[in-house]
Amino acid sequence: MQTSSSKLRINGASARGLEDVTAFTSSICLIDGQQGELAYRGYDIADLVEHITFEDVAWLLWHGSLPEPHNRDQLQERLCAERHLPPIVLDVLRLTPEETDPMAALRTAVSALAHFDREAEDSSRAANHRKAVRLTARIPTVVAAFARLRRGLEPVAPRMSGSTARNFLYMLSGEMPGPRAEQTMDAALVLHAEHGLNASTFAARVIGATLSDTYSAVTGAIGALKGPLHGGANTRVMQMLLALRRSGQDPVAFVRKKLAANERIMGFGHRVYKTIDPRARYLRGMLYSLGRERDAMHWVKTCNDLARVVKHEKGLNPNVDFFSAPVYHMLGIDADLYTPIFVMSRITGWTAHLLEQWDNNRLIRPRARYVGPRGLQVQAA
Amino acid sequence: MQTSSSKLRINGASARGLEDVTAFTSSICLIDGQQGELAYRGYDIADLVEHITFEDVAWLLWHGSLPEPHNRDQLQERLCAERHLPPIVLDVLRLTPEETDPMAALRTAVSALAHFDREAEDSSRAANHRKAVRLTARIPTVVAAFARLRRGLEPVAPRMSGSTARNFLYMLSGEMPGPRAEQTMDAALVLHAEHGLNASTFAARVIGATLSDTYSAVTGAIGALKGPLHGGANTRVMQMLLALRRSGQDPVAFVRKKLAANERIMGFGHRVYKTIDPRARYLRGMLYSLGRERDAMHWVKTCNDLARVVKHEKGLNPNVDFFSAPVYHMLGIDADLYTPIFVMSRITGWTAHLLEQWDNNRLIRPRARYVGPRGLQVQAA
Repeated sequence: MQTSSSKLRINGASARGLEDVTAFTSSICLIDGQQGELAYRGYDIADLVEHITFEDVAWLLWHGSLPEPHNRDQLQERLCAERHLPPIVLDVLRLTPEETDPMAALRTAVSALAHFDREAEDSSRAANHRKAVRLTARIPTVVAAFARLRRGLEPVAPRMSGSTARNFLYMLSGEMPGPRAEQTMDAALVLHAEHGLNASTFAARVIGATLSDTYSAVTGAIGALKGPLHGGANTRVMQMLLALRRSGQDPVAFVRKKLAANERIMGFGHRVYKTIDPRARYLRGMLYSLGRERDAMHWVKTCNDLARVVKHEKGLNPNVDFFSAPVYHMLGIDADLYTPIFVMSRITGWTAHLLEQWDNNRLIRPRARYVGPRGLQVQAA
Repeated sequence: MQTSSSKLRINGASARGLEDVTAFTSSICLIDGQQGELAYRGYDIADLVEHITFEDVAWLLWHGSLPEPHNRDQLQERLCAERHLPPIVLDVLRLTPEETDPMAALRTAVSALAHFDREAEDSSRAANHRKAVRLTARIPTVVAAFARLRRGLEPVAPRMSGSTARNFLYMLSGEMPGPRAEQTMDAALVLHAEHGLNASTFAARVIGATLSDTYSAVTGAIGALKGPLHGGANTRVMQMLLALRRSGQDPVAFVRKKLAANERIMGFGHRVYKTIDPRARYLRGMLYSLGRERDAMHWVKTCNDLARVVKHEKGLNPNVDFFSAPVYHMLGIDADLYTPIFVMSRITGWTAHLLEQWDNNRLIRPRARYVGPRGLQVQAA
């Protein structure tokens, strides 16, 4: 909003949305949109999803290196110990009307978790690390508790052992998941943990850069991820797939009708990837495996048909949301919980970015070019 | 985080914090940092603070023009009608521990307000306008209720008439304020209502640009304003002024000791204003008037002495926070409520920016230049 001279002015379209503007340097995530490559801390996503767990990925994102065995044990112990919610946060969830958007319920509960964290206002690096672990441990408990409460069921207390993936599926259904379900959930968490300066991560850094606290930054990031142009997309993919199946329509006719009506087909294309999203490749594999195991190959066929038509009509590839949606559906998860599950994973990337931001902080404050009226007077009006 | 070629790269320091980068155009606020000028929608802040109320400023920010008499009546009616909190949000405040940072309590309560707003997920322009009014009406009730609850007092129900300033001071103390106090509070709200693309407004737009909802964007903005490098500064000014008075030290010795210890003197200098912050000028006037009325000229002297020393030693001018702090103190308000009061006012600017963002939306997503390791392998580790 300043009129004073800027060292740099970006004109018109190229400035909008800060696309192509480099905001700062980072050592967390490398995305090569042309090659369809994604790496966390130098490790290719294919290598990570095949060889390490979500908990190891969390350690890698926070610390910049893979955990040693004793690091892994220590993190697992702390994650398990922190899974229980403060009783009053559970009360806040009980007071949340059942029709509330689960992302809004999660946003409120995460904000309220701060009130019961003695380190909420402690800005030391060690405390910020502990808060990253604490939020990673507690967010799945919040998501599962609200998912049950809104159906009139009592929350299931977290277990003090087992992986984040296993414990989450257990708290959601009250039953221990099988190995395929746990493995699928774990891989989905690995694939969603980090993705550079997306809108929610950027929101977290903008908030953190005022030297505000972890809970404030994460609450803001949840609000950003909630948006349909960001994390909200996977829920909409499932709503579309369910509508397609219910209609009994041919996917070709379905897509052409949508395109003719200028409606967006959810789950295709990506601002960064110009080729196949590397995460989509793995999720497609998981879709096949689950489909075979659960006798639900119709979802595989529906997705393949739809992807082929959209590729033919629009030249767009399916993205991560397109395949994560039917995978979660086969795991028995409600469509509007997909974005909260995204939070369960991305909390690790957000907090890694916050730690990086605070290591070398500077307020993030771009300018807006003022194009409104000047020199008006109240008395003359 | 992308390696693909960028149309634009900004090197090193100039890119950090996006300083001097123009993110988009805006018609809301003009700041001339060199001249020390600030205008909302083309009206100079001096003209506004002298001639119109906070409610008129809210209308101006949202609609781009001053209200006609019937607009003013309509807005006043709606603000009054919306002041009451949903009972469960009051329950959430009752469940918030008294030692909670009031900005964290406000962040949670505003997030929870969404659960009881049937229009929370309605993204129409009309609904977004109504939510702007609703939040402007309810935030003072939240701030006052928590301020009383944490002292063991019952909240005072809002009145269905009178200005935002008058009603807030009434809900805080349970007593009707005098005309000077109301006028001072109203002027403070006018002066803080809008200030271009500061960090909290930018955070609101980043969140809103994902097409997330008003509550998500405002909750994130509250988190950003909470930071000591942003809205949190006025609380720290008062803590410093109180420490100075308690110590009985000479301001010159106090400042030199702080500077020698490399400590920051709160309330001086501004990233944008290179001359006197135009808001500080008015707040200083209010400080004099209140000081005379309330027989508290010692605060005027302390502030003047401190400002003179800092100007002499560091060449810095006092900013808006330096004078708002003792003004609020004289109104009998606790130091840690100054940032929540900032929210009561800035909610109008944030929501004006959200309406502008959504009129011509684009995802806000800059890049980070990756400087971390490459080509690592889990198996080799």
